Amino acid sequence: MKSRLLIDGPEKTWALILSTGDEASSALEKFANENKLRGSHFSAIGAFVRATLGYFDWEKKDYVKIRIEEQVEVLSLLGDIAMDNGKPKIHAHVVVGRRDGAACGGHLLEGVVRPTLEIIVTESPQALQKKYDPESRLALISL
Amino acid sequence: MKSRLLIDGPEKTWALILSTGDEASSALEKFANENKLRGSHFSAIGAFVRATLGYFDWEKKDYVKIRIEEQVEVLSLLGDIAMDNGKPKIHAHVVVGRRDGAACGGHLLEGVVRPTLEIIVTESPQALQKKYDPESRLALISL
Amino acid sequence: MKSRLLIDGPEKTWALILSTGDEASSALEKFANENKLRGSHFSAIGAFVRATLGYFDWEKKDYVKIRIEEQVEVLSLLGDIAMDNGKPKIHAHVVVGRRDGAACGGHLLEGVVRPTLEIIVTESPQALQKKYDPESRLALISL
Repeated sequence: MKSRLLIDGPEKTWALILSTGDEASSALEKFANENKLRGSHFSAIGAFVRATLGYFDWEKKDYVKIRIEEQVEVLSLLGDIAMDNGKPKIHAHVVVGRRDGAACGGHLLEGVVRPTLEIIVTESPQALQKKYDPESRLALISL
Repeated sequence: MKSRLLIDGPEKTWALILSTGDEASSALEKFANENKLRGSHFSAIGAFVRATLGYFDWEKKDYVKIRIEEQVEVLSLLGDIAMDNGKPKIHAHVVVGRRDGAACGGHLLEGVVRPTLEIIVTESPQALQKKYDPESRLALISL
Repeated sequence: MKSRLLIDGPEKTWALILSTGDEASSALEKFANENKLRGSHFSAIGAFVRATLGYFDWEKKDYVKIRIEEQVEVLSLLGDIAMDNGKPKIHAHVVVGRRDGAACGGHLLEGVVRPTLEIIVTESPQALQKKYDPESRLALISL
């Protein structure tokens, strides 16, 4: 993972480039911790050699795992970073494309990059806070 | 629907958080009216309990409705806000993910949130204007 | 293709509106050349009358072509612009939606617009450089 600060001001923007073998979710979390991100959003394109996505089962209040065991294009990776119990938490949803063009996607649990993932991260001067939501049993951004 | 102004300047950015039961298209329109948005773009992730999407039938010059009658992940919601006959008009396209990861999408007609939709809206200092296009019979952004 | 500078500063943002018959990839390249873009990212929604997408075959180190021979909604078009051998190079991934809502996508090789493609392009004050990567045989952004 390499990063470059593209714009420095009240709002900061970085390019974050992941390479073969990097795992997207943990790389974003590491970057968020190192840079003390408290309220960010990001978008990315690239490719994964394999990934685990989630679908939130409303009845069970848990994620069903969707395993992608092949090279796929990362068509869209969108998400945000907010504070959860004092630490930055990554929330990302991804759409991937298979060899025949079929698109599938879900909540990003794990995505192993090959050969690149090009992420643009924008940090705002305002922190975003997560709060436990008893109805969904998830920590959701609360303004 | 709750909002927070993240960045105030010539360009303004808000976080807009929708909750269970909020309808995304009308919530965005309400927010645009209240904040007098005249030229914005936005992106979002979250989940819908149900949605109605559209596919523009070029022969009939009308939207075919695609009904989603299940809990889906909102993998990507991208769009813009431009002036149409003196009022802000929302234009949004969405990709949703089903339990098995299958992705589908279309023009957002209606999307009922559960439990959250996290939207980042950026308003530029330049208004965008829509104009009736006789060929498509749609109001399109005209520069 | 028409454009309007929405924000002028160290970071510049344009709205770029393509019309029926415009090809998205070449239009973005033309715009990047005319405006000497060296490090940008963009997002778009709209519709294509036809498109050619790519899936990168890791074994063959080449793109498999996916042909879309029908009117589709452009649900998401995300990408970046970086310098490759002294010229701006467009890298874009797209998700399109068919009449029944099925989503497919890939690396954008060619997309012919009908009736509109609404693109937001942001140019940062920092150039992004591509470099040949022997493992993938692709030019990748190198920080």
